[in-house]
Amino acid sequence: MQLAGLQGVEQPRVDNVRVTVFAADHGIAVHGVSAYPQCVTWQMVGNFCAGGAAVNVLAAETGATLEVVDVGTLGDGECPEGVIANRCGPGTADFATTAAMTKEQLESALEAGRATAGRALAAGSDLFIGGEMGIGNTTSAAALACALLGAPAEAVAGPGSGLGPAGIRQKSAVIARALDVHRGHLDDPLEALGRLGGFEIAALVGSFSACAQQRIPVLVDGFIAGVAALIAVRLSPGAGGWMLHAHRSAEPGHGLVLAALGATPLLDLGFRLGEGSGALAALPLIRLACALHGGMATFAAAGVADA
Amino acid sequence: MQLAGLQGVEQPRVDNVRVTVFAADHGIAVHGVSAYPQCVTWQMVGNFCAGGAAVNVLAAETGATLEVVDVGTLGDGECPEGVIANRCGPGTADFATTAAMTKEQLESALEAGRATAGRALAAGSDLFIGGEMGIGNTTSAAALACALLGAPAEAVAGPGSGLGPAGIRQKSAVIARALDVHRGHLDDPLEALGRLGGFEIAALVGSFSACAQQRIPVLVDGFIAGVAALIAVRLSPGAGGWMLHAHRSAEPGHGLVLAALGATPLLDLGFRLGEGSGALAALPLIRLACALHGGMATFAAAGVADA
Repeated sequence: MQLAGLQGVEQPRVDNVRVTVFAADHGIAVHGVSAYPQCVTWQMVGNFCAGGAAVNVLAAETGATLEVVDVGTLGDGECPEGVIANRCGPGTADFATTAAMTKEQLESALEAGRATAGRALAAGSDLFIGGEMGIGNTTSAAALACALLGAPAEAVAGPGSGLGPAGIRQKSAVIARALDVHRGHLDDPLEALGRLGGFEIAALVGSFSACAQQRIPVLVDGFIAGVAALIAVRLSPGAGGWMLHAHRSAEPGHGLVLAALGATPLLDLGFRLGEGSGALAALPLIRLACALHGGMATFAAAGVADA
Repeated sequence: MQLAGLQGVEQPRVDNVRVTVFAADHGIAVHGVSAYPQCVTWQMVGNFCAGGAAVNVLAAETGATLEVVDVGTLGDGECPEGVIANRCGPGTADFATTAAMTKEQLESALEAGRATAGRALAAGSDLFIGGEMGIGNTTSAAALACALLGAPAEAVAGPGSGLGPAGIRQKSAVIARALDVHRGHLDDPLEALGRLGGFEIAALVGSFSACAQQRIPVLVDGFIAGVAALIAVRLSPGAGGWMLHAHRSAEPGHGLVLAALGATPLLDLGFRLGEGSGALAALPLIRLACALHGGMATFAAAGVADA
């Protein structure tokens, strides 16, 4: 029913689905906040191109169109064929000591997201999914969640791609230090995004905002996409009405973000992968809901007695 | 991985899925324990044949093969074309005063389920889903859950297809009275099934047991199918290993049944429809899991660095 309202039709459909994965690197990774080395961001871009990542398999199975945009990895050399090159910088700066990005870089990353939404519109997309890849990006998303929600670092920092308890303590300490460094400059969501964000997170914000403006429903993935969704809603509350929420991530901060969004996600399966994978996993449920909405007989039509 | 083990292959698949809906009527319905009149059971059989029910739409969308078996409705006249007629009686007797079925009827209903599993095997099914339709059958399932789990009626009786608080109190009182009537004869799961069950519940038990014996994984639907699954496991604990659990129903007794089964279902969306509909809603997730298991590159193969 929500989709019917958004699409302005009696029988909504999500046949044409577009998933864009934004990839970027993070200066904060120097602090050992990830279980994986920074080179994995670029290697995963290659994996996306080779069709071997989770998002490739899920997009193929669900018939979604996959787009990969490099919005600022540290990849050496040119982007592989099939990747849209839209680098806003050679990764972000280390936000534990300085702003992650310049104002120009922030605008460039937001615009990369808006351009993506424009391509989704041109392709006649019924639904947009934004994914991300970037070693260190749960640290950036957690710092942003702290800034947006006034939550302490230890309530939001989680294992990400697989940190142990000591790693999570280190990540939490890095976030707390960064929040101190930027104290007094985090009330404005855009300024917080520029200081603590990543290029892929800013691109997600731009894409979500533009999708709402263009009347394209968005299926929000997990923790990182959820933080981007929250920023988009803080910038323009009406954007929230265009968002469906796919799943509750295993990342501890996601519950706080979902609560702030007033969102009840469809799945709760302990996913923690990103790439838009959790949204694609929830997509068949939405398609089945559309089919039920459009295909079932009413009790009256079927000659079934009323309650 | 569970499916790979059950199917004995490296790359499991759930392409060929069979869903059987067992329909039957219940003598207990005379006590006003349902929000709908008893004639709805037979009307819904007609709706299944006409393709207008939820299970029709979901089976069509997921490519599952749908079979409908009348195991004992009060339908007047012959079963419509497309329904397998296997009536074990003209509905069950009122179990608030007497045993729901005779020993012969119980055996007949179990055999109807086993025959269904045989057809699933002959069709080369990768996965079996059992659904049910029968006005009054959450009362029967709740009474069985009380008997199997030693739980009080008020902890298990729920709204079913839509009772209000007064209706639920009435349903709970009917169940408590029936448990008194049959006290001392409920320790054996088969005897409990014959005294408190419905033909469709017994057929589900027979189908689940036979699927396990024939090495066909079962995707268990909601509360009523869950009670049947619990009886099948009580009869033969090894049957539990062949069961996947689709969703947590809104019916309050389902949580107790799932806990007794040690089951963690995939979905928790407040479904309360039966017909196998919740299992079909979860089916795409299992297919996506199979696709990920079989289609993703390993990090080594994709040249991605280790943690």
